[in-house]
Amino acid sequence: MGFEVDDVITQATTEELSKLVCGDGNWHTSGVERLGVPRVHMADGPHGLRVEETAALGESRPATCFPPAVGLASSWNPALLKRVGTALGREAVAQGVDVVLGPGINIKRSPLCGRNFEYFSEDPLVAGRLASAMVYGLQSQGVGACVKHFAANNQETDRMRVDARVSERALREIYLPAFETVIGSAHPWMVMCAYNRLNGTLVSENPWLLTDVLRGDWDYDGAVVSDWGAVVDRVESLVAGLDLEMPHEQGNSDVEVAAAVESGQLSREILELAAARILALTERAMDAVRDTTPVDEAEHHQLAREAARESMVLLANDGVLPLAPRASVALVGEFARTPRFQGGGSSRVNATRVERLVDTLASRRRVTFAPGFLLSGESDDALVDEAVAAAEASDVVVLCLGLPDAEETEGVDRTHLRLPDVQLALLAELAETGKPIVVVLSNGAAVEVAPWADQCAALLEGWLGGQAGALALADVLVGDAEPSGRLTETLALRLADHPSSLMFPGESGHVDYGEGVFVGYRGFDAADREVAFPFGFGLGYTTFSYDKLVAKVTGTPASGDLRIVVQVTVTNTGERAGSEVVQVYVGNAPASVPRPPRELRAFAKVRLEPGESRTVTLPLDSRAFAFWSEVHDRWVVESGLFTIEAGPNVRDLPLVQELRLDMPARRVRLHAESTLAEWMADDQAWAALLARVPGGQGFSLPEEVIAVVGGAPLRRFAKFPGIPLTAADVDAVLASHG
Amino acid sequence: MGFEVDDVITQATTEELSKLVCGDGNWHTSGVERLGVPRVHMADGPHGLRVEETAALGESRPATCFPPAVGLASSWNPALLKRVGTALGREAVAQGVDVVLGPGINIKRSPLCGRNFEYFSEDPLVAGRLASAMVYGLQSQGVGACVKHFAANNQETDRMRVDARVSERALREIYLPAFETVIGSAHPWMVMCAYNRLNGTLVSENPWLLTDVLRGDWDYDGAVVSDWGAVVDRVESLVAGLDLEMPHEQGNSDVEVAAAVESGQLSREILELAAARILALTERAMDAVRDTTPVDEAEHHQLAREAARESMVLLANDGVLPLAPRASVALVGEFARTPRFQGGGSSRVNATRVERLVDTLASRRRVTFAPGFLLSGESDDALVDEAVAAAEASDVVVLCLGLPDAEETEGVDRTHLRLPDVQLALLAELAETGKPIVVVLSNGAAVEVAPWADQCAALLEGWLGGQAGALALADVLVGDAEPSGRLTETLALRLADHPSSLMFPGESGHVDYGEGVFVGYRGFDAADREVAFPFGFGLGYTTFSYDKLVAKVTGTPASGDLRIVVQVTVTNTGERAGSEVVQVYVGNAPASVPRPPRELRAFAKVRLEPGESRTVTLPLDSRAFAFWSEVHDRWVVESGLFTIEAGPNVRDLPLVQELRLDMPARRVRLHAESTLAEWMADDQAWAALLARVPGGQGFSLPEEVIAVVGGAPLRRFAKFPGIPLTAADVDAVLASHG
Repeated sequence: MGFEVDDVITQATTEELSKLVCGDGNWHTSGVERLGVPRVHMADGPHGLRVEETAALGESRPATCFPPAVGLASSWNPALLKRVGTALGREAVAQGVDVVLGPGINIKRSPLCGRNFEYFSEDPLVAGRLASAMVYGLQSQGVGACVKHFAANNQETDRMRVDARVSERALREIYLPAFETVIGSAHPWMVMCAYNRLNGTLVSENPWLLTDVLRGDWDYDGAVVSDWGAVVDRVESLVAGLDLEMPHEQGNSDVEVAAAVESGQLSREILELAAARILALTERAMDAVRDTTPVDEAEHHQLAREAARESMVLLANDGVLPLAPRASVALVGEFARTPRFQGGGSSRVNATRVERLVDTLASRRRVTFAPGFLLSGESDDALVDEAVAAAEASDVVVLCLGLPDAEETEGVDRTHLRLPDVQLALLAELAETGKPIVVVLSNGAAVEVAPWADQCAALLEGWLGGQAGALALADVLVGDAEPSGRLTETLALRLADHPSSLMFPGESGHVDYGEGVFVGYRGFDAADREVAFPFGFGLGYTTFSYDKLVAKVTGTPASGDLRIVVQVTVTNTGERAGSEVVQVYVGNAPASVPRPPRELRAFAKVRLEPGESRTVTLPLDSRAFAFWSEVHDRWVVESGLFTIEAGPNVRDLPLVQELRLDMPARRVRLHAESTLAEWMADDQAWAALLARVPGGQGFSLPEEVIAVVGGAPLRRFAKFPGIPLTAADVDAVLASHG
Repeated sequence: MGFEVDDVITQATTEELSKLVCGDGNWHTSGVERLGVPRVHMADGPHGLRVEETAALGESRPATCFPPAVGLASSWNPALLKRVGTALGREAVAQGVDVVLGPGINIKRSPLCGRNFEYFSEDPLVAGRLASAMVYGLQSQGVGACVKHFAANNQETDRMRVDARVSERALREIYLPAFETVIGSAHPWMVMCAYNRLNGTLVSENPWLLTDVLRGDWDYDGAVVSDWGAVVDRVESLVAGLDLEMPHEQGNSDVEVAAAVESGQLSREILELAAARILALTERAMDAVRDTTPVDEAEHHQLAREAARESMVLLANDGVLPLAPRASVALVGEFARTPRFQGGGSSRVNATRVERLVDTLASRRRVTFAPGFLLSGESDDALVDEAVAAAEASDVVVLCLGLPDAEETEGVDRTHLRLPDVQLALLAELAETGKPIVVVLSNGAAVEVAPWADQCAALLEGWLGGQAGALALADVLVGDAEPSGRLTETLALRLADHPSSLMFPGESGHVDYGEGVFVGYRGFDAADREVAFPFGFGLGYTTFSYDKLVAKVTGTPASGDLRIVVQVTVTNTGERAGSEVVQVYVGNAPASVPRPPRELRAFAKVRLEPGESRTVTLPLDSRAFAFWSEVHDRWVVESGLFTIEAGPNVRDLPLVQELRLDMPARRVRLHAESTLAEWMADDQAWAALLARVPGGQGFSLPEEVIAVVGGAPLRRFAKFPGIPLTAADVDAVLASHG
């Protein structure tokens, strides 16, 4: 049993290799039976497996539904993500799955993206670090992860065709780093290429992305698979670096590939390279050491509960939470009885069981349930009256609001951020009773809360909590557990405040990422725009103080070795144990390009007993200070002033230290379009040029003149009448100093 | 004397034609002496001639300095612009100038653009209509206009190299229409091509812009000249459609061109085409009937005064203006003695005389002058004390604030919208006196007024008023004239509120126009963002009511002939005669692309006696309802609901009429990437496709499924396992129905 990759490559016919780079049906690679190469089995499943029983979508085997990424990410807890990944791996092994098609780590560019519930954050550090932990856990079980959707797939509208027009800097700083981090630190077996176009070229045919960046810059040696249906031209996609087309019915693309090799249009070496990667993947799957003892469903259910507790973000609390032990509770809202715990589309899990708050809370408090509204959105006065009566007869109202299932599904973007009118009308009616209202939200993506948040005594963002979400909600509501999630996306006052709002989801086949790197809090900060709740925000049941920030340079920046260690001291100033997410942001202003006022560069979740202090150590490397220079085509840290800030969220950073860095200067290579100012900044070239001008040595220009004419390309300037310099002079100096 | 264009083309050597398409020195075409073709003389001068005495910038012959475009445009008065154009033409004739290099009609994308004072508006209708009138007036004197800078030159930063990345729709709807209007209605002799790149290609080498759009779509038959120094590759620029390179020293580009023709790299036909256009321009200049009677400087000075009066925008007035006849006035601010009346750069005029408010107001009111601050920006407590003393001793303060000269000049963009700190500190001190303060602004581009506007009793935006600006200011302050200007650009509360703020001026060689068509008020409205003073706003010394809006369809929209006549009745409800700018906006929602809530589609300035009513008739054609469809590559009016609104500014539109238009449907051509939903919308093609599927006739999908999978390109979908349809089926139907 087994095979050698090199042997297969040598012995396989072109047809066999062509079949190998195209899948077999919906969920398998093709293998090469004649040469002992088995098929690899893939299945959907970022937060729970979806192994299809039949070909029809929706019929899948039962599996644990963990909280979707929106929730898991809010935990800011890599250790938790690793445990969930491990559990997923166990279930995959049990189901005979070799590769799980997840996690999805695209950046939340707009809150409207219909798949945001499957994604981690508006920030690439959060997405990259947490997804890495999940991949690490999953792969620790001998099952492969497949990070997706690579890249710039940040919307569902026209997702299979739309041309995402993104600057390279925004790609390198915002849309690619999560992939880069996962690949560099967790080595996922596969990467899934996205459906869309990127700067004019289909991602599935984009050699810059699939080869230059992924293989070249990041040294990735795993296999690249198409998103299901992303391939248009299989030969072009092979050339670009796409190893495996999925899904595929033999007799289609495989025939095209073989024909292209036969005709000489495609070199067999390119085919062999892709085939070798699929063979290596197959070997990995075959060689994997897997624990085949049966999965304990109850244990995974408990893990899902624990994950949900860490996912929830307490946005407001006047003290009504935790609910008093003897409080009578009006539990209002259909979601308490019909929970929304996951989103729609390929990630939908057939959960092993599903908890309902109407049960989980009733076992711990005196509860009167009233559905309050119809999920259809139709208004129903009788339901409102019933809910108001329940509220009036109780000490406190727990009101479960959220988004309709149909508004959060793969394939469709939302068009607004509002909760359904019937729900807000109900809230307003309940507020009239004067009873304290705890609003619990079930939603996978940001909703507008500002218009009604002042009607709540407490506001708990429960996200989509997975199958055990309602257990976790009850734990948190009664205070058996603390809500320890923090926002990984900004909650804006209004949709229109988002930097992308006028540019999402694009039109006529393209979407312009004109906001560049100013995504999420980077944009809100740059525009100094008020928000409802800032990135990183979340309350617990205790309080913390930030006491001391020390940033020490440990490398030698002047020689390019920039390493800094940040230490932050944080203290639990409350009366119960609790967790805090210490966040460190770095800012660089002014720089030669516009930079966000601050960017998250490190974080750590710490649990402290009442009164306990801890000094958290967070190392920063040069990337924490760098931007992607399109001029130099690389990461650049400029000399200048940086600020290092620490605190509980991006708008509350009590600790600040300034740092002046002196980095090696980087020469800008002169070229035919270099400006007068750029020439004057290059001492050698400028001197060489002046040497060609009679009497030129003494030449100088006042600063105010340079301010106005310094932007003129010197070679064009040289052609003006009366300028004692010719284009030939410029060319000559360029030849020796360019 | 004279020549025939065809004869010259036939008889000229390649060298002679090559010289002809390259200028002679800084200001002349080359001519062909041997064949009797004279040189054409060009000179700077959008709002006043700049004919150089010597080669050195700044030494030019005296000429009347009219208000720059920022002021002229604020008049919203085409008749005034025509008169100013005519006067410019008279001065050009007197100076022996054949072509005046203006007007500049670029859109004010950002208030920071250093050359905004030379431009008309954030709105293309305003810019196009007013510039047309100016060109018409100028050319009525037998002198050519040269509209500039074509196109997408909306900033000074890196202006000679920057790649403006703009969607075609934004170009067609925002950045090009002013050029289209001027070319279509006023036939300028020349168009000046901009320095920058557009979507990757230098404008001077951009055949799409210079040939397809300009010559093809717009039928332009005049000559295209480079902005001074815009040419990099003369041969490429000839091929793209650039007729004349300026400036040029013979022996440079002309030699390259001739060599390229000799080597066969460039066809002589292309060279002949450009040469013929320059010869036609030369003929026009030779044949022009010109009035050579001497220019009456005093008369032009009066016209400049009148223009300045119509340029001023009264933003706030609690009744302090006009100044009471017996009021004693503290006239504060260095600008009253050292007026700022124009901007810097190639448009700077050596004015025949310059008025100062310290003189013009003193002749009509009892005035105590105090400079109040230093133009350098240094603080000077003694000056403040003196100003406060003057204020305390007077009934009212007229405070002249404004931007430093250095902040408004060609070649440099601003970086903020604030007035200098010393000026605002002075205002705060004066406000302490409790005296009513009339702030008079001298600035060529928008400044932030919100933080301090509440300290003023009146706020008069005087813009840059030209050489007679101070006469006009005095006229308005004392009430001899009414300030009848209206804003042609939004005054935002803050720079960050501008839709372009995070994308201006770009970086690393490119600027992304990600806000698309949402420029100026279009963006503020779309984002529902508060502003300090809205587009179109301005007060006078009387008041108006809007009473009736009637919109009548006069064409037959269903057959594509869409014409609508709008009638608006407006009444002067105050006690003195005054002018009002009636504005008509059209909105279309929902459309298949995101459209601005409303767009200015017609305006008329009317002067009414007290109590007088007038019904203003404003015709709208189909363009008033259309958007540029990138899908159909043409203007499209969609069936649906439109609103026609009328009123005094974009945020105050008391009259509204809804209009449902039924336009001919436009079929979307199916192609290989057409989606399932697009196929299903094409009855014939869909039927043909289903006919190929066994049992396909009865096939249908529920709407909610289409919502999710409808976006999948059918040809990719057909390749999925189990789909009873092949890519070949799709291709076959495409061949007959695509």
